[in-house]
Amino acid sequence: MNRHTIYVTNQPLAAARRAWQEALEEIGFFRRRPQETVRVEQALGRLTAAPVFALHSSPSYPAAAMDGIALFFGDLSTASERNPVILGPDRFLRVNTGNAIADRFNAVVMSEDIHWLDDGRVELTSPATPWQHVRTVGEDIVATELIIPEGQAIRPIDIGAMLAAGVVEVAVRRPPRVIVIPTGSELIDPGQPVQPGQIIEFNSRVLSGYLSEWGAHTAVHPPVPDDPELLLRALRAAVEQADVVITNAGASAGSKDFSNHVIGSMGSVIVHGVAIKPGKPVILATAGETPVIGLPGYPISALLTLRLFVRDMIYGFLGRETPAPRNTEAIMSRPMPSPMGVDEFVRVTLGRVGDNLIATPSGKGAGSVMSMVRADGMITIGAGSEGIGAGERVQVELLRRRSEVDATLVMIGSHDNILDLLANHLHRLHPPIRLSSAHVGSMGGIMAIKRGEAHLAGSHLLDEQTGEYNISFIKRFLPNLPLRLINLCYRQQGLLVAKGNPKQISSLADIAERGLRFINRQKGAGTRLLTDSMLRATGLDADRLNGYNHEEYTHMNIAAAVASGSADAGMGIRAAAVALDVDFVPLVEERYDLIVPESFMHDPRVGAALDLITADAECRNKIIGLGGYSLRDAGTIMYQQ
Amino acid sequence: MNRHTIYVTNQPLAAARRAWQEALEEIGFFRRRPQETVRVEQALGRLTAAPVFALHSSPSYPAAAMDGIALFFGDLSTASERNPVILGPDRFLRVNTGNAIADRFNAVVMSEDIHWLDDGRVELTSPATPWQHVRTVGEDIVATELIIPEGQAIRPIDIGAMLAAGVVEVAVRRPPRVIVIPTGSELIDPGQPVQPGQIIEFNSRVLSGYLSEWGAHTAVHPPVPDDPELLLRALRAAVEQADVVITNAGASAGSKDFSNHVIGSMGSVIVHGVAIKPGKPVILATAGETPVIGLPGYPISALLTLRLFVRDMIYGFLGRETPAPRNTEAIMSRPMPSPMGVDEFVRVTLGRVGDNLIATPSGKGAGSVMSMVRADGMITIGAGSEGIGAGERVQVELLRRRSEVDATLVMIGSHDNILDLLANHLHRLHPPIRLSSAHVGSMGGIMAIKRGEAHLAGSHLLDEQTGEYNISFIKRFLPNLPLRLINLCYRQQGLLVAKGNPKQISSLADIAERGLRFINRQKGAGTRLLTDSMLRATGLDADRLNGYNHEEYTHMNIAAAVASGSADAGMGIRAAAVALDVDFVPLVEERYDLIVPESFMHDPRVGAALDLITADAECRNKIIGLGGYSLRDAGTIMYQQ
Repeated sequence: MNRHTIYVTNQPLAAARRAWQEALEEIGFFRRRPQETVRVEQALGRLTAAPVFALHSSPSYPAAAMDGIALFFGDLSTASERNPVILGPDRFLRVNTGNAIADRFNAVVMSEDIHWLDDGRVELTSPATPWQHVRTVGEDIVATELIIPEGQAIRPIDIGAMLAAGVVEVAVRRPPRVIVIPTGSELIDPGQPVQPGQIIEFNSRVLSGYLSEWGAHTAVHPPVPDDPELLLRALRAAVEQADVVITNAGASAGSKDFSNHVIGSMGSVIVHGVAIKPGKPVILATAGETPVIGLPGYPISALLTLRLFVRDMIYGFLGRETPAPRNTEAIMSRPMPSPMGVDEFVRVTLGRVGDNLIATPSGKGAGSVMSMVRADGMITIGAGSEGIGAGERVQVELLRRRSEVDATLVMIGSHDNILDLLANHLHRLHPPIRLSSAHVGSMGGIMAIKRGEAHLAGSHLLDEQTGEYNISFIKRFLPNLPLRLINLCYRQQGLLVAKGNPKQISSLADIAERGLRFINRQKGAGTRLLTDSMLRATGLDADRLNGYNHEEYTHMNIAAAVASGSADAGMGIRAAAVALDVDFVPLVEERYDLIVPESFMHDPRVGAALDLITADAECRNKIIGLGGYSLRDAGTIMYQQ
Repeated sequence: MNRHTIYVTNQPLAAARRAWQEALEEIGFFRRRPQETVRVEQALGRLTAAPVFALHSSPSYPAAAMDGIALFFGDLSTASERNPVILGPDRFLRVNTGNAIADRFNAVVMSEDIHWLDDGRVELTSPATPWQHVRTVGEDIVATELIIPEGQAIRPIDIGAMLAAGVVEVAVRRPPRVIVIPTGSELIDPGQPVQPGQIIEFNSRVLSGYLSEWGAHTAVHPPVPDDPELLLRALRAAVEQADVVITNAGASAGSKDFSNHVIGSMGSVIVHGVAIKPGKPVILATAGETPVIGLPGYPISALLTLRLFVRDMIYGFLGRETPAPRNTEAIMSRPMPSPMGVDEFVRVTLGRVGDNLIATPSGKGAGSVMSMVRADGMITIGAGSEGIGAGERVQVELLRRRSEVDATLVMIGSHDNILDLLANHLHRLHPPIRLSSAHVGSMGGIMAIKRGEAHLAGSHLLDEQTGEYNISFIKRFLPNLPLRLINLCYRQQGLLVAKGNPKQISSLADIAERGLRFINRQKGAGTRLLTDSMLRATGLDADRLNGYNHEEYTHMNIAAAVASGSADAGMGIRAAAVALDVDFVPLVEERYDLIVPESFMHDPRVGAALDLITADAECRNKIIGLGGYSLRDAGTIMYQQ
């Protein structure tokens, strides 16, 4: 071991969870059950700390159950159609629903059955039974009766029952108090301009959001700079006040990462390092009787370890069962290799295509917040597996409602900026529908259609022989599938270069000849093919393009690389240049089509999307506003088979 | 029509809903979509009013993805195990995860692959690729990229993504403002002592609880006394401030109920009176562009009409789909007649017994709050049906989570005060388990076991011939069912009489001879059989007992009738007398057993309940504390077949 490597243990997940559970039981974490008293009207959603019994009956007096008159039932014993009974005003009293019934009466005759005489007397033609149309004392709730048992979440109707039974205060379980301490001198508050090396401190807001959804009360400590003394002081104070203390960042093996040491100095480190991905460097410790959890710094690592190790704690502290995961089965759309010996958690988007639910990874990095924003589900690849093959059936934990997943229109293929816009319009106009688009390039889209994994594929593949787009590729790769090829747009492709084009780039040849830094799209992308075809046309060798092998997956990432100065130029669409305010050197107008299998042509989700591009003026105007688009053939069937 | 009957229209539910929907569309209720701007950190659960786009990229600078050193990848082009490259401190920089990569570097080598020399230089044995272990600009989020579309509920991870992308404020849809106005001079605030004729105003708290669960912001107006002028004034002010105005009570045909008139004077009454039960007298109106809903006064009527007519409004105002009802199929345990021409809503408890989900009505009255507290589901009996037969399959809308229903132990049969206590202990010690007990008398319990509708039945049926409890009834009615008869308790039965026994009652004969008012248990109740057997033993004729035909369903209701003075005496258990502080004249000790079919003996829910009465000292002590119980044989098998 050299002097900069710190040993991080690598416990299997199940063992770590067991050890942590035992440690929590040892400090009596789940037995505490603190409670507090709140007004019933403020108790919605709280959990009762004791059974609630009725303080008085409801009704607490005999009450009319109908509008009519109250009387003594014996007075009507001889009443019939032939022999009506006539009662004077001293033998009855008009009552409305809810009125108390005077002691001398014990029945109500309802308005419809009363014949009023002009002198104020009433004529009645049928006998009454005792207590008819009377709500007797305790009919609804009898004093001392159990209204709701201990440990129940209080619903609006429970509030009504308690108030009806005279209960105005109720003992409820106190939620666990959690203090989250972000650590790191590089952290800045949201809303501040970010200097290189600084990181916006947003993790604590994500963590406290989940904690509060699970039932905790969370306070976020101001970020603690990288100073063991300051961290120790913050931890000591937090442990005094909170039921659970969480630090965030400072849990990896980096030289500034002394959390383990500091936490260890306060109590016992139960687990440091778990064989999971992401989330490996998590710390689970106790300081006296307070659990202290050191979450890793990467957002997805922090969130996953929070779910794995803290979620059960919050539910358990409140005496609730952690909700069972909602699992479903899906088919993996692409291979997902995974290291042996590690439980890996993979975020996926899901979509129902035909009879199958298709899972596609939504991004892998522990730092990729968007991979989680986009995720519909989570797959666990067990420590004993080397990964999942394309087409394999997998268990998926749903992160969205099933109905949302089922309403998702799945588009796989080439990336275009129009797609974000369509996604938003679709969701706004037809709320259940969501558009999920995976950017795997035009060829990837065709293959997804072939495998039955997408409703639509976006494609702009140029056949150099014929000069036609897409059709020859369809004939070759999807020969037997009835489908339509529908135009989405024409768009300008060209070179994205720095604002003002300071290096005066006008062609690929410029870049090659002057050794400038190029950035390329991935293999299978239509734009990559366009680059290759232009290189061939000008007789340039790819090897001469510095950066030809540096690949990005979307037009926007190309634009971002150029905007940040890490590349001098890349091939992409004008809309990406407009979006990130870099310059654009137009080279060609190309056709971008949608491939739609015939079997999905009558799917209302597909219909809604096509309506948007052909008939929705607002949507079309917004597309034009993105820059570089023509919609002259939008919605036109370019080919059918 | 006589002068006290007011005509209430009786529109079919579907027509009323259609008319209401059209009226709301006419006033543009669903098109308003007001919005407000909130800080992202406060936006959890809110719905985006517009798509949210990234303001800057994340990362916004190239950053180390690992701890290690940053360097220029070209420096390592010749590195190999045989030909290591040695770099001086000017050619690299130590970096931790997240650090910015200086402009002159474009790759990171991780700590594990670095060999540090003593002089501060490093030795490296493999080449690097450009941007390896570097998070490039926009790797997670590219500026201008869509983060979340319009109309999405903001989750914790979305907050993270927005903050990471520099978004600190977000436009969200403003929830509808609802003002609830309770009306009625009889209303008093919770916590006040209730005088006859007064009603605790709790409906508004129940209504606002549901409204807030659906997404509205609700304010409750102080109760308005029965004065058209005051109501008009309150309504006028509310209509100015709120998106939706709701009055509660004053919607029936009672003489004080002028809501219809007042509401009509302000605008258009779209619907008054719907053919539903309960909830018939609901008023749906518009005042200018504001919907005004007059809900009936009975709590269950108010709540049901709120669900039927207001719930979709709240969701629609926010542009959300009303959650689809969670339906399931169940078997009706008893017949449920229902009038033709009316859609009737029946609250039911549910329990899984063997393979079947069994539905049992939890109470019928529109004033029965507890029927809704206890309900697990709701059945609609359509206008074209005369009701549901016992054993018939019905569609049930679930009001609880399915897992809660599946964890319910179903006990049907005789009522005893121990059952509340058991329910509470079971739920506290084994949180998923709930005990649902339906009080239909001992014979009703035996029949429920016969039909496979209960896990347990409580029974105390005395065979006058043998002097034995329960066994001869089991042999006769459940001859072929393997089961165990397990003792729950012995308990004192006797006469419940007013505190201090002012009428000096000591026997049923006293009551009959002196013409005092008796209150009886329902047919099929063990206590009814006990009364009958004692009448026979003393040669008394049932006709001579004044009130013999006035039936109540539980010991507690008998005690409540005696406590309130509406009856002089009734037969019941000592625990009920103790609970309501009335006097008790002991007549007999009887045995109360549980009938458990053999097939449920190994059900963990049954085991948990039996453990409580045999082994849980706290629970047993509490039972003794109720008064009149002996647990000397609790848990003993009295009979087995």
